[in-house]
Amino acid sequence: MSPEAVQRIHDSFAAQSMMETLGARIEAVAQGNVRSAAPILPGARQQQGHGHAGLTFSLGDTAAGYAALTVLPETVEVVTAEIKINLLAPARGDRLVAVGKVIKPGRRLCVVTSEVFAEADGKASLIAILQGTMVPVPR
Amino acid sequence: MSPEAVQRIHDSFAAQSMMETLGARIEAVAQGNVRSAAPILPGARQQQGHGHAGLTFSLGDTAAGYAALTVLPETVEVVTAEIKINLLAPARGDRLVAVGKVIKPGRRLCVVTSEVFAEADGKASLIAILQGTMVPVPR
Amino acid sequence: MSPEAVQRIHDSFAAQSMMETLGARIEAVAQGNVRSAAPILPGARQQQGHGHAGLTFSLGDTAAGYAALTVLPETVEVVTAEIKINLLAPARGDRLVAVGKVIKPGRRLCVVTSEVFAEADGKASLIAILQGTMVPVPR
Amino acid sequence: MSPEAVQRIHDSFAAQSMMETLGARIEAVAQGNVRSAAPILPGARQQQGHGHAGLTFSLGDTAAGYAALTVLPETVEVVTAEIKINLLAPARGDRLVAVGKVIKPGRRLCVVTSEVFAEADGKASLIAILQGTMVPVPR
Repeated sequence: MSPEAVQRIHDSFAAQSMMETLGARIEAVAQGNVRSAAPILPGARQQQGHGHAGLTFSLGDTAAGYAALTVLPETVEVVTAEIKINLLAPARGDRLVAVGKVIKPGRRLCVVTSEVFAEADGKASLIAILQGTMVPVPR
Repeated sequence: MSPEAVQRIHDSFAAQSMMETLGARIEAVAQGNVRSAAPILPGARQQQGHGHAGLTFSLGDTAAGYAALTVLPETVEVVTAEIKINLLAPARGDRLVAVGKVIKPGRRLCVVTSEVFAEADGKASLIAILQGTMVPVPR
Repeated sequence: MSPEAVQRIHDSFAAQSMMETLGARIEAVAQGNVRSAAPILPGARQQQGHGHAGLTFSLGDTAAGYAALTVLPETVEVVTAEIKINLLAPARGDRLVAVGKVIKPGRRLCVVTSEVFAEADGKASLIAILQGTMVPVPR
Repeated sequence: MSPEAVQRIHDSFAAQSMMETLGARIEAVAQGNVRSAAPILPGARQQQGHGHAGLTFSLGDTAAGYAALTVLPETVEVVTAEIKINLLAPARGDRLVAVGKVIKPGRRLCVVTSEVFAEADGKASLIAILQGTMVPVPR
């Protein structure tokens, strides 16, 4: 990918105040593949003290959405049309990492998946998988 | 429902720091039915300035989860096993309201749905629907 | 709806050999709403003798798809982009009935739901709910 | 896996009359992994003459369910609690092949995925992905 295309992902991400609230950032961008990460902040927890499903979802959805954006023309943004999350284990640890991937690119619909891992004591475990559809919209 | 059962929902909700971060609260609790709401805070937006999908998801998922809790014994909590969201329109406006509903109660699995509305200028429009599975876990 | 529009639904349905294999038919067509039904044939069962999830899915998906077609221009067909099914109970009985409904019409995406009921001894019980996205394609 | 465990999968599959109607069979069984296949029969088509979504779903769901069964005790059967399918392309060709995989085994819930391929002129292309939850039930 061109540096401009990568920058476009980072700029769009930076414009999402929710990502700043969650302390999230983009860690890697490649064609059809984006990795994002966030600490499990004190303000992003559920009733048992683990990371909230809303955090896991937000990170997984965002990685998938930007993965879709890497395969689309520069003139568009993407929005999530639908996405499903299966939560496999509690979000225990210090940090979540999401890896989004394009399964089927398309001008009208882009099918994506995402895996979310929780990192504790330097060990990552898969805590959620997502499968969804991203839709290009004019910027 | 008994005042104790309603209080249990409010206590569990209050223990979720993510809900406080998003400014969310429980508005109504009935058997199999919970309504939650949150303002679209400056820190909960996507790149176009509308409410973030993570906010819509968090609110819809939470209303559905607590709806499930209203039909379960007092000795359990619930966690989301899986949930799918279809986003129908951008989250434009001041406030989101989610209405969670139990479709099929069960001791092992509880099937739920949720509708999320955006309120702008005193008018509510449906912006998302969710369908998922809640699982009881020991408190 | 015009008789022509209703006929169009019946013609498209009749062109699906899978529906004939399953013994399915359209029972009612209204704007944004279609009901289909099928017997639980001896050749459409799972290993415990109940109706197969594939039968329940086929009927629910079809009702939802044709519900979408009722709100689209005459020049298009629809295909399922994605759909999720939650199975609530075994498909016990003689006959399944599916009711598909449009939640959000759209020229690019049409969000739909479907409920599937099993009828036994003249009593219907809800056995599955579906939530999905239909996409118009040129005929 | 023991020959008995593999035989158990084949026996359960053979008891599903829907699989016989669709001409489906199990092609490979390994720990956490099952491959099934079916011809696109004349009686399993949609209105444009391609394989019906109900066929694609049935095959993908079945492969995922039996993949779950390979990691569960011999005393149980599995049923699908929920599953979501994203359809990527029409089911064009002679034959469909589904590969089911266990993502997260569990005594209460088993999270699975499935990929479905269409074979035409000796070439396979991915036409659908599924993500779902299987639940063990007593035999």
